[in-house]
Amino acid sequence: MTVATYDRVVPRSGEQARFRLRAAALELYGERGYETTTTAQIAELAGVSERTFFRHFPDKREVLFDGETELITIMTSAIEAAPADLTPLLLVMTAYAAAVPLLVANRTVAEQRAQVIATTPALQERAHAKGAALLEAVTTAVVERGVPQPTARLAAQVGAAVFDRATHAWNDQPGRDLHDLLTAATAEARQLA
Amino acid sequence: MTVATYDRVVPRSGEQARFRLRAAALELYGERGYETTTTAQIAELAGVSERTFFRHFPDKREVLFDGETELITIMTSAIEAAPADLTPLLLVMTAYAAAVPLLVANRTVAEQRAQVIATTPALQERAHAKGAALLEAVTTAVVERGVPQPTARLAAQVGAAVFDRATHAWNDQPGRDLHDLLTAATAEARQLA
Repeated sequence: MTVATYDRVVPRSGEQARFRLRAAALELYGERGYETTTTAQIAELAGVSERTFFRHFPDKREVLFDGETELITIMTSAIEAAPADLTPLLLVMTAYAAAVPLLVANRTVAEQRAQVIATTPALQERAHAKGAALLEAVTTAVVERGVPQPTARLAAQVGAAVFDRATHAWNDQPGRDLHDLLTAATAEARQLA
Repeated sequence: MTVATYDRVVPRSGEQARFRLRAAALELYGERGYETTTTAQIAELAGVSERTFFRHFPDKREVLFDGETELITIMTSAIEAAPADLTPLLLVMTAYAAAVPLLVANRTVAEQRAQVIATTPALQERAHAKGAALLEAVTTAVVERGVPQPTARLAAQVGAAVFDRATHAWNDQPGRDLHDLLTAATAEARQLA
């Protein structure tokens, strides 16, 4: 969604500034590159002051990693609330299933983000750190359900591979339901092993 | 192995300069840190000229990633030569099994390397790139055995998770056989799914 479209659907309230800033940043990173875009330009396109930018984000990099905490909370809460009889891998897949609504809502933004990160080496370490933090959080949540740590970590890693398989399929076939693709990828992993 | 020990067991021939340089680099990185160590100091400790250093390595970072090509060659050759009836995951595990002798031979060096990388943020992106290159090479080798690309990639990722599980167990129980630990971790992944 461009900022121009955004303007027509979202009121310019204080609460929406964060969303406007994120849309503006992604638009500029895509158009002129991450490295050359400044926080002043992002704020200008979003129609807010640079001070407002810094009230929401510590720097232009973190705009790209917004929502990380929310994703972790949704996934670990799902593991906490899952039925007691699930295998470790199904515990992890329950967490990804719980994240589907957020992933669907953020789909366009996620694609733009992925493109910026793929073409900007300076961002890749941060993206890896995000993946590692998610893996760690999922592992810990599975351990808290009584699974030994090494098995929990293996389940979290296999789950991440299954999720990766499902989202690649989702990119190739945008019309498919992500829940169905996750189920299919889980079955494929079972077949593999 | 320290350079002093190394001196007693390995002749100072041109062919051994590479190994001497690697041992010297790891010793210095461990003692005074990666950032402050210079190629001149590494060459001096190894008893060779700085020019010899640059004949073997483009910079002090690449000393840590020596052996990457050899590992990829061993693993992809094993997939090429594997029996026709293996499942995709077992194809990948055959590749890791083929790498066991190299991993055993490099065990001490690998532990020193891991410590330097863990404490040096500047090296982590390079380490991730190494992991990604291995994943890509294994995926391609599995595709060449007739497995569709998405399934091959899933198998390569699950295989990497299984390998990670086995090497963590190896670190905790150094007396165990890595082949046995790989077999146990493969069985555990099957159980999970």
